[in-house]
Parts: sequence; C-alpha cells; structure tokens
Amino acid sequence: MPPPEASSVANATTVETPSDFAPEDRSAEPDAARQAAGSTAASFVCPTPLPTKGRIVLGHGSGGRLSAELLQEIFLPLFSNPILNRLDDQAVLEIGGTRLAFTTDSFVVKPLFFPGGDIGSLAVHGTVNDLAMGGARPLFLSAGFILEEGLDTGVLRRVAASMAKAAADAGVSIVTGDTKVVEKGKGDGLFINTTGIGVVPDGVTLSASRVRPGDRVILSGSIGDHGIAILAQREGLEFETELMSDSASLHTLVAAMLEVSSHMPSGVSQGIRCLRDPTRGGVSSALNEIAGQSRVGIEIEEARIPVRDAVRGACEMLGLDPLYVANEGKLLAIVSPELAEAMVEAMRWHPLGAQAQIIGTAHEMHPGMVTMRTVFGSTRIVDMLAGDQLPRIC
Amino acid sequence: MPPPEASSVANATTVETPSDFAPEDRSAEPDAARQAAGSTAASFVCPTPLPTKGRIVLGHGSGGRLSAELLQEIFLPLFSNPILNRLDDQAVLEIGGTRLAFTTDSFVVKPLFFPGGDIGSLAVHGTVNDLAMGGARPLFLSAGFILEEGLDTGVLRRVAASMAKAAADAGVSIVTGDTKVVEKGKGDGLFINTTGIGVVPDGVTLSASRVRPGDRVILSGSIGDHGIAILAQREGLEFETELMSDSASLHTLVAAMLEVSSHMPSGVSQGIRCLRDPTRGGVSSALNEIAGQSRVGIEIEEARIPVRDAVRGACEMLGLDPLYVANEGKLLAIVSPELAEAMVEAMRWHPLGAQAQIIGTAHEMHPGMVTMRTVFGSTRIVDMLAGDQLPRIC
Repeated sequence: MPPPEASSVANATTVETPSDFAPEDRSAEPDAARQAAGSTAASFVCPTPLPTKGRIVLGHGSGGRLSAELLQEIFLPLFSNPILNRLDDQAVLEIGGTRLAFTTDSFVVKPLFFPGGDIGSLAVHGTVNDLAMGGARPLFLSAGFILEEGLDTGVLRRVAASMAKAAADAGVSIVTGDTKVVEKGKGDGLFINTTGIGVVPDGVTLSASRVRPGDRVILSGSIGDHGIAILAQREGLEFETELMSDSASLHTLVAAMLEVSSHMPSGVSQGIRCLRDPTRGGVSSALNEIAGQSRVGIEIEEARIPVRDAVRGACEMLGLDPLYVANEGKLLAIVSPELAEAMVEAMRWHPLGAQAQIIGTAHEMHPGMVTMRTVFGSTRIVDMLAGDQLPRIC
Repeated sequence: MPPPEASSVANATTVETPSDFAPEDRSAEPDAARQAAGSTAASFVCPTPLPTKGRIVLGHGSGGRLSAELLQEIFLPLFSNPILNRLDDQAVLEIGGTRLAFTTDSFVVKPLFFPGGDIGSLAVHGTVNDLAMGGARPLFLSAGFILEEGLDTGVLRRVAASMAKAAADAGVSIVTGDTKVVEKGKGDGLFINTTGIGVVPDGVTLSASRVRPGDRVILSGSIGDHGIAILAQREGLEFETELMSDSASLHTLVAAMLEVSSHMPSGVSQGIRCLRDPTRGGVSSALNEIAGQSRVGIEIEEARIPVRDAVRGACEMLGLDPLYVANEGKLLAIVSPELAEAMVEAMRWHPLGAQAQIIGTAHEMHPGMVTMRTVFGSTRIVDMLAGDQLPRIC
C-alpha cells in the first residue's frame, strides 16, 4: 500500500531551492540507488525536469530541478572556480590570513509586508543566516534597491526602517548601497539585494560535504511557518490561529552551538559537520543537498518534526507538504553522534532553538537519498520535486 | 551675453548620479557662494527639487537631487554608521588587519545589449571600477540575478558568458550567486546585482574629502561615449560613425597610477587625493560630489575635455551636454600639483589613459562649486541638475 502522503508529495505546489547558486548536482546520482529504496518508494521517482522551451519559467527560481539545470548548464560552466564550485550557501575567502564568508541574495517576496516581517527584515535575516550557516560572525551588509516608478515613499521608508532594526538587532552594519529606479510596469514595487561579509572563526569548517554515516540530523524548531504565512497573506486566507513568519537572525543560536562544540574533548570539537537554513526549498531540499554533497543517505522520522497546528491545518487544506515549505528562522545541523545530545540540550536554552529535536540519522545506504519513516511506519523517499512551486516566497 | 551652452545645460535630459549611496549633501551649501560666481552663472542656479508627491519617480534613481533627497531623508538617517556616512563609492572595512573595499551596484540597463558591451560586462566593469576608485585590487564578485518569466535562456547565456569574460579579463572570480524569477510583467528581462570585495594596499587612502586647493583634476579620456551609445541604440538613432560604449575595467590603469605615486619622494607619494569614475551623473556630477565633500571650488577648462566628434554631434542633435552623460571606462583623478604632470605622462602609456589630460584645478573660492571656462572665454557653473534624466543607463 502506498503511504498516504503519496499524492500530497507528488502533486504539492512546493517551494524548493537552496540559497544562492547552490542547488546540488543530482545528475551523477544513480537511478539504481533510488530504485533500491524499495517498492514503497518506487512511485516517487522524480519525473524528468520540465521542458524549458528555451524560456525562463518561474520554476527556474524555485531552487528545484530547473534551478539546478540553470546552474549546471549556464552559470557553473561559465563562472567555474574552486570557491564557487563548493556550492555551499556562502563563499569562504582567505584574505590576509582571515577567512571571510561572503554571500548574496536578492529578495522579491510578495507581498512586501506579511505577519512576522517584511521584505526589509527578511533581506537582513536571509543574508545574516547564510553567513551564520558557514559558522561566520556576520559583520557588514550592502543593500541594493531596485524601485518601481510610482512606489509610495512611505512604503520604502517602512521597509528601510525594518532593515535598519533587523541589522541593529543582528549587530551588522549596512555600509554601502545603491538605488536604481525602473519604469512603472518594469518592476514590482521593490526588490532588494543584500550581500554580506562575516568572519569565520579559527577552527570552524562547516560544509555540506563533511557529513559521515552515523551523524545525527538536528532541526531547531517547527517548520513551514514562513511559507504558509506568506501564502495565507497573499491569497487572503484566514485561519483561526494567526500564521506568522518565523523570519529571524540565527547567528546567536549558531554562536551558542559553536561554543558547545568548542568545549568538547578533542575529536568531538569538529563534530558540527554542517549547518543549513531550510529556506526556499524547505527541509526536504536542504537535506537532499547535504545528502548529495556528502554522498550519504539520510533518514528522518516524521513524528519528530515539529509542525504547528495552524501550519499543519493550512498545509492539509492547501495540499502542501510542510517538508517543502520555506522557513526563514530555522536551521538544520548535522553533528557527530557523540555531540548530538549535548547540542540539542544547548540549543533548547536559546529562544530560537527551544523546540530543537534530533530528527534523523545519516547512513551508508542509498547515498544521496533522503528517506522518511512516516507516522504510519512506512518509509518514503523525500525528494526534490520537479514541477510547479510557490514563487516569490523570499 | 550668456554663454551659448546655457539652454542646453538648463534643459538637457541629463543623467547624473554618484554610484551607490553617494550623492553629496548639498543642503549646507551657501546660495551666496553660487550667486558670487558672477552674472554669467546666475541663470544656471538650480531650480528647487521636483516635488515627489510621496511617490518614487525615475529621477530618484538618476543620482541627481532627487537621489540625494532619498538618501538624506530615508537611507542615511536609518542606516547611519561611520563607514556609510563617508559617502565614497566603496566602503573600506578593517578586518583582521587588512583593509577591504566593499561595494554594490544593481544594473538595470536597457537595452541589454549595446555597441561596446552588454548588461553582463557592464555589471562586472561597474563594480570592479568602484573597487578600483578606492585604490583597491579587485578580487571577488557576487552575482545576483532577477529574471523575468519568459526571458530567452539564450539571452541569459550570452549575458553570463559576457560576465565570465569580463571577470576573467579583470582577474576577479564570481564566487557566490543567487537567482530569482518574477512573473511576466513584474520585471524587465534581466536585472543583475554585483557586489565586490577588493584589498586596499598599505599606504593608499583615497577619498573625495581629501582634495586641497591647488590640486589638479585629471581626466583619463573622452567623455559621453557610454550614455550616448545606449541612447542611440535605445532610440534606434543612426550616426555616420558608430557610437560605442567605453565600458571597461579600470583597475590596471589605477594600479599604474598608484605605482607612479609610490615612486615619488615622500610628501608627493600621497599625492593622489581621490579617484572617481564619472558614471551615471557624468563628469559634472562626480566633480560636484568631490567639491562638496572636500569643500573646495573646482574650475575646469572646456577646451581641455576630450569629446569624440560622433558623441559631440549626437549631443548637439539631442540637446545633451556631454558633461552630464554617463561614462563606464573613464576616471577622474585629483592629484597634488607636484604629481600632476608625471601622472598624466604615466597614464598615457596605458591604453585606457591614452588621452589623459589635466582639465582643471581645485581652489579656495566658492567651496562646493564647480565652474567651467568655456571655449568662448566665459565662466559658467557646472551644477547638478534637478529635473528629468536619462533613465536605465546602467
């Protein structure tokens, strides 16, 4: 019997992407490995990528297979260099003996204001978090605005004030910027690019390629809040409980996690393998990237993944799977088994990690594949979907 | 008799802006100083800024008075910090004992392809040059794409290939990136943000606030080529000689200039006060920024400013003043009088400085004001104009 999640996964309007140019390369993945996952999974083997017909479609920005195609066919062959080719969420640059993290993100979220945040705070949190996921202390941001003629200057002021507050809260300075204006009908109110610089502390090396079999997967809290809040706002949906984005800067949670790790006995101190914030593509996409880059299998347990009742309800109503919905204030950590319990304990002291859970384990079988033990006891593949997605979520 | 340039200056459709968040604050400038420039100039006193009516207009992106207003009223009060407040074209950050230059620019040029370049090469040259104008050696770029649904992927490939070539030519690596897609009608084909990092060599401190009376103004070559090439392409204008953008990376020219300076006797070695690439706002805007930030007057000589015949002809036909038209491969250097001749000599050895000229001098009179001795022997103010501009030139 196929698990009941089948149709919702296969047909869901999903949002899946890695940040930056970092969708993983799945082209080398053996189909045999996927088939080997057993009959319960066979019906979830991904369809071939949608034909692009030589035109950019919304899916090219979703971070799913079409984004990966764009990356593999256009950007990587042309821009190829050892730093870019690592495909982590941030470049790590060695300059003058210091390791700098460097990351960029453009924000085109619609609507500009939503419960729990707006495009301004999101533009700060998103880039601060991409720095933090490399273990870096975020320091400086640039801000590039593309404004559409006719935008209310009051809207711009509110957004800029929100950016300023988010930056001050995160302890980063906006040190350089740029503003362009395009004619009415050639933009959509307001787009923001933020690019960030941080310093990676000595001894910290996090990368999606460092995961080993036996490592534990930790999730910092409930999933799906950001994507569902945006969708509800955009579509004018009302629920009994207000849906609220989780948009937040995660760097102090990361600092606390690195602190725990540094106090461990030698051998365990390198126990944080990698961190990822499961944004556009949700948890499924982030874990697929990690599994692909480290060539390990990852199995997660559905029962251990916190989802708020309101988010679960909205997902059921809308036919979405929370695993594919964007988060903006959550992180996944892959850590060594010796470190896992202490790490979860420490995370729970932090307000942004209060619901931290070990949700899964890396293993040797099916390298590159993510599977989930469902609440019904069956196992299913958690794949990156081709097909439609929820655009302009960030 | 008013000089014949009067109407063309006052009515020109001009493009004027500093790069980044760096239009100078002219609010403190005494009107008396402007009046004191004499009767030939009186008719050129700027009108009050256009009312914005609480809406963003194209002029907010022009880098003229409306851009300055946006900066002074919204961004600076909210984002204020000592690095941003310097208002140079690049932030200079001290990290781990190294001075890093950091700068961002979004590119919305229309059309995407034009004689002499395209949005891709422009996006590399523009950010490389903003780093170089701080004396920095450009090292790393990020690339953020905002694509419009329906864009031909062949166009994206051509643009990316052009970026890759420009980056390779300039010796910089594109190390991190991001791609977003917006619905058809919510963008305009393709916007690119590039943000760059470079290293400022020891002993180099360039800033628009370092100019002193007596310093000489050097221009590296002919002006107006980029803006006129874009305009001609956009409007389908044809001229006997092909108009070609001057878009180019200026960092090797800057390196050669710093080399000359470093071999001078002590006291002269600090003789390069500042460098500016006169982009959106043209030479007039760049010089006004410098005069404003250093509180000096600057007088330039019209006869010494090279303008190609084709550009001059197009400007006359279109009612534009080349001083207000954008350049993407030229620089202005303000240097100490002792250094000026040697600097021009050295610049002329470089292909991008072959037409270098001393075009003017800084002085104590009329601080913050730029004046020009015309070919007719009269003097006029070269001001930042309010009013319309030529949008989407970069």
